[in-house]
Amino acid sequence: MNNRICSLLNIKYPVIAGGMVWCSGWKLASAVSNAGGLGLLGAGSMYPDVLREHIQKTKKATDKPFGVNVPLLYPDIETIMNIIMEEDVKVVFTSAGNPKTWTKLLKAEGIRVVHVVSSSKFALKCEEAGVDAVVAEGFEAGGHNGREETTTLTLVPQVRKAITLPLIAAGGIATGRGMLATMVLGAEGVQIGTRFALSIESSAHNFFKQKCLELNEGDTMLSLKKVSPTRLIKNDFFRQVEEAENAGASAEEILAIIGRGRSKLGIFEGDLKDGELEIGQVASLIKDISPIKAIMEEIITEYKQAVKDLPILALG
Amino acid sequence: MNNRICSLLNIKYPVIAGGMVWCSGWKLASAVSNAGGLGLLGAGSMYPDVLREHIQKTKKATDKPFGVNVPLLYPDIETIMNIIMEEDVKVVFTSAGNPKTWTKLLKAEGIRVVHVVSSSKFALKCEEAGVDAVVAEGFEAGGHNGREETTTLTLVPQVRKAITLPLIAAGGIATGRGMLATMVLGAEGVQIGTRFALSIESSAHNFFKQKCLELNEGDTMLSLKKVSPTRLIKNDFFRQVEEAENAGASAEEILAIIGRGRSKLGIFEGDLKDGELEIGQVASLIKDISPIKAIMEEIITEYKQAVKDLPILALG
Repeated sequence: MNNRICSLLNIKYPVIAGGMVWCSGWKLASAVSNAGGLGLLGAGSMYPDVLREHIQKTKKATDKPFGVNVPLLYPDIETIMNIIMEEDVKVVFTSAGNPKTWTKLLKAEGIRVVHVVSSSKFALKCEEAGVDAVVAEGFEAGGHNGREETTTLTLVPQVRKAITLPLIAAGGIATGRGMLATMVLGAEGVQIGTRFALSIESSAHNFFKQKCLELNEGDTMLSLKKVSPTRLIKNDFFRQVEEAENAGASAEEILAIIGRGRSKLGIFEGDLKDGELEIGQVASLIKDISPIKAIMEEIITEYKQAVKDLPILALG
Repeated sequence: MNNRICSLLNIKYPVIAGGMVWCSGWKLASAVSNAGGLGLLGAGSMYPDVLREHIQKTKKATDKPFGVNVPLLYPDIETIMNIIMEEDVKVVFTSAGNPKTWTKLLKAEGIRVVHVVSSSKFALKCEEAGVDAVVAEGFEAGGHNGREETTTLTLVPQVRKAITLPLIAAGGIATGRGMLATMVLGAEGVQIGTRFALSIESSAHNFFKQKCLELNEGDTMLSLKKVSPTRLIKNDFFRQVEEAENAGASAEEILAIIGRGRSKLGIFEGDLKDGELEIGQVASLIKDISPIKAIMEEIITEYKQAVKDLPILALG
């Protein structure tokens, strides 16, 4: 397979593990990289020193490439970027901010830069900013999300039409067939969050993981739209926000309800009632917590089988 | 191709045109059937006498099978169903109601019954009710939509896992690649709305069609959630509803804003300011109003090419 994502990131399979807050530590990142994909550390939930520690541990746990996901609105962004450069990380996925700000500097250090977008408009800005590849993430994805609410099925062809850069699909992909479906639409790789968040190596609390296994369709919802749209499990915290929104609460009032540390409380500490529980729609398809090696094998095996099966779908 | 949807509906290609209010009259339905798919009349926007007239005109315009889409909450539902049986229509797609109510009676008349769902829970109810096939319609679809907000990419595998009935995917499909992507996920056919609404034969007003061609990502949004979730173009009417919702308006207050005849005003009469403009997210991919024959050929040609191209996607 002559795949631009595999070449660019020097990986076996074009499968990237999303850098998820409170899930994506060194254990998950190194396991995904060791399994032939690209593991990402989620800097969004790490203080700078913690990130450095996780980078060092990942380097010890794998000799394969890995990366760091950095939300560009991170308060200590300069410190974070300096650590990434000092520790000689080869790949940075950036999101939630302007790709122009850091791309040039990172690329000058030989780092591959990939930016996450939710529209073809921002994909074009990425191309102008000189990033190496783009992640197009749809409405079904867990956690922070675009305001356009464009689904992966609609977004991927849009972005494919708009740019020539290597393209990674994200949102709603948990299986080999899901992966192949987005590749048919023009993606050259996939970023998988939810499926990897619900693995042995994910640092999420076991209460959170077990809760996710019980989800049915409709049990997550895009919430916090007045602040920053985020896909959450519909728990007590979600309903508190929803009631306030329905009663016409302002962004400031919603922020006051959220307070600080809500996602840590929910995902890392396992408070299923008052925590902010970020996960993708596709959680409802997942019924087991397995090791990354087995999950990756399952995805790749199903993908290969789906490619083989395709002649069945030929029209006369 | 041994395809259960083609066999069941006696059509060449497993492509159904959604029965869309104010778009799906006899011209659109017969053109789709003549092009090898299944055309549907949209009874939702027709008085009983009008429906009878359109059925008779469709029969004159094509010798191929066609069907009628009937929202089961239609006020004159008994009259509508009697007309369908009297006029010897072979296929009925039902939606927005309980599939148990009419399936048995229609099937006793030799009519194929397909029900539209937005969750695997309702797909199971369809199976119990004895319908012949199910349409799984995702969040990106235009017009009326499910409360679960499950996208096509997530919904199709869920429904595929839940039932063994023939399965049609809907929502976000406008191209051959989109069609193949959903077939990879387990669908055996597709229902296409938006692409066919924006055709020469669609009875929508030309102002409406032209407006749809200008849409970008994010220009439609799921609205009217307190009443009945509906995907609309963000026009003045949409904003009026949105403001009321943000200020905490009740369902009754929203209904009062809507009043009567809003979708006719927008889609059929072309009032782009005050009308209710129902269209799918995927409109932003569509840049021309063409005849159905050309659209169908484009979809099928692209589909076939995408199947041929698939060895490129094989992983080593």
